[in-house]
Amino acid sequence: MKDKLIFIGVIGGSEATAPIAKLAEEVGREIARRGAVLVCGGMAGVMKAACKGASREGGLTIGILPGDDRKTANPYVKIPIVTGIGYARNVAVVMTSHAVIAIDGSYGTLTEIGYALQAGIPVIGLDTWSLSINGQAENNIIPAKNAKDAVAKAMALANKK
Amino acid sequence: MKDKLIFIGVIGGSEATAPIAKLAEEVGREIARRGAVLVCGGMAGVMKAACKGASREGGLTIGILPGDDRKTANPYVKIPIVTGIGYARNVAVVMTSHAVIAIDGSYGTLTEIGYALQAGIPVIGLDTWSLSINGQAENNIIPAKNAKDAVAKAMALANKK
Amino acid sequence: MKDKLIFIGVIGGSEATAPIAKLAEEVGREIARRGAVLVCGGMAGVMKAACKGASREGGLTIGILPGDDRKTANPYVKIPIVTGIGYARNVAVVMTSHAVIAIDGSYGTLTEIGYALQAGIPVIGLDTWSLSINGQAENNIIPAKNAKDAVAKAMALANKK
Amino acid sequence: MKDKLIFIGVIGGSEATAPIAKLAEEVGREIARRGAVLVCGGMAGVMKAACKGASREGGLTIGILPGDDRKTANPYVKIPIVTGIGYARNVAVVMTSHAVIAIDGSYGTLTEIGYALQAGIPVIGLDTWSLSINGQAENNIIPAKNAKDAVAKAMALANKK
Repeated sequence: MKDKLIFIGVIGGSEATAPIAKLAEEVGREIARRGAVLVCGGMAGVMKAACKGASREGGLTIGILPGDDRKTANPYVKIPIVTGIGYARNVAVVMTSHAVIAIDGSYGTLTEIGYALQAGIPVIGLDTWSLSINGQAENNIIPAKNAKDAVAKAMALANKK
Repeated sequence: MKDKLIFIGVIGGSEATAPIAKLAEEVGREIARRGAVLVCGGMAGVMKAACKGASREGGLTIGILPGDDRKTANPYVKIPIVTGIGYARNVAVVMTSHAVIAIDGSYGTLTEIGYALQAGIPVIGLDTWSLSINGQAENNIIPAKNAKDAVAKAMALANKK
Repeated sequence: MKDKLIFIGVIGGSEATAPIAKLAEEVGREIARRGAVLVCGGMAGVMKAACKGASREGGLTIGILPGDDRKTANPYVKIPIVTGIGYARNVAVVMTSHAVIAIDGSYGTLTEIGYALQAGIPVIGLDTWSLSINGQAENNIIPAKNAKDAVAKAMALANKK
Repeated sequence: MKDKLIFIGVIGGSEATAPIAKLAEEVGREIARRGAVLVCGGMAGVMKAACKGASREGGLTIGILPGDDRKTANPYVKIPIVTGIGYARNVAVVMTSHAVIAIDGSYGTLTEIGYALQAGIPVIGLDTWSLSINGQAENNIIPAKNAKDAVAKAMALANKK
């Protein structure tokens, strides 16, 4: 039991354009290939695409759901966690992960980036929010070139924790 | 992916006498033998004993933790869900489960029994709370004779949902 | 600012018979007469009746709501706290109170009794749950004879905290 | 009871430089002068300064606390809401408010901005985060020139809701 699993979060909106869904699916596939567990919010869009990718590679997928019905999980979620606490569950998605990969830019993703940065959990960004304050850029979101690069960076940082 | 897993919750306090720990371990073992996933609060006492039993039989164990540190999980938790929401996580332990088995009588267990009854999730009782109001007994806690009986009843009711 | 307010919780179901509603209204009235703030879950039934009583006496009423819409509060809630965390908000109702008065016996009330006993917050009972385990009664729910007695006991215990 | 209160949230970090604290205090004062209730996370820094300003003008202040102890509230909080749900309470701070004023740039503030934008609650910004995605600026954070301007804008938008 002491060979601990690595949990990589994929955070992104419940709607996704075709290119974003493709990107998320590649991220999910890559997470599974590297033997990590995919954690997400369990719903549609980026979350569904990522779960689909991981699932196709035989990976384990966890969906931490906002509502009180496990049937709201996307069909690629293997382990639905039914929280019933609404979007407050965003903090659990982040804290369950050793590192998170943010894809695209929903407002929910913004809350998850905030929670991750606050908790010191590494955030890798793919086509996601850029933040600045008084003209100074926030540098704690680590940019990635593509899905493979994002997962490589997430795994490297997760292993340090 | 469409062969859905069955999730059985074990609810009980973070302290346990030796006989209660033995009972919880048997419940955990039996859950694993029947191929179900054990869900619990991830901490010590009843939760640890149940996870130990399931783990020894090669079963999957999920610990839905109150705090913000995965290291607080007992060593038999395979999948720690880090919620950071304190004892509000009790509702997630219950709602993630198709049925729950209540062992012994901590106050936290009482909150979980209340949440389960409210949500219509079957509750099997082993040496746990009896409830009544104005002299009328609450009959929705289903008594079990022993660990095997408790898990058999939980599985039967879970499959109906 | 240093004259601290006393917060008394009223916990009870969202449906109430006429006699229970009358009792809850008397409890609310009495809380306001004694200058304490009434805390509750903000919904219908026992909560609405208690808020009505307090409100009619010019008291302050706080409704800690499960949903994400302040308009779901009963009309006698002066301060709606919109949590969006569902029934996990039960823990906040309890912890915001110096003492709680449990009226009648919904399953939600049971979760709140459990949270209060766990946190060491005094629980006064009016026509509510009786608990026992292995034939031994739980004595930490303090029985009251009527609304006035319940509030007197709650205020006395709140002031000790 | 039907003259509804207006609730204005002040979101900002638990540490504040002297100029930021001065700004937050002015915002709090202005909220109280206009007869609105100040909602915040109840802790130190921006929250404390804003509560101080409101309190000095005789305004009502609500602190929605992350922990389980009301004594962690800053001394200018009149109504401490004790949630026990950690930083998941950020969503409650936002949803309890008709509009929020974001001051300065902690990561917690970022989560609150995300929750407010997601829920359609107006966000007024004072020296706070700028967001963009793929070079396109997020325009839903309404900039304000100073404390007075921020509160005027928040009140105007709150009254529309």
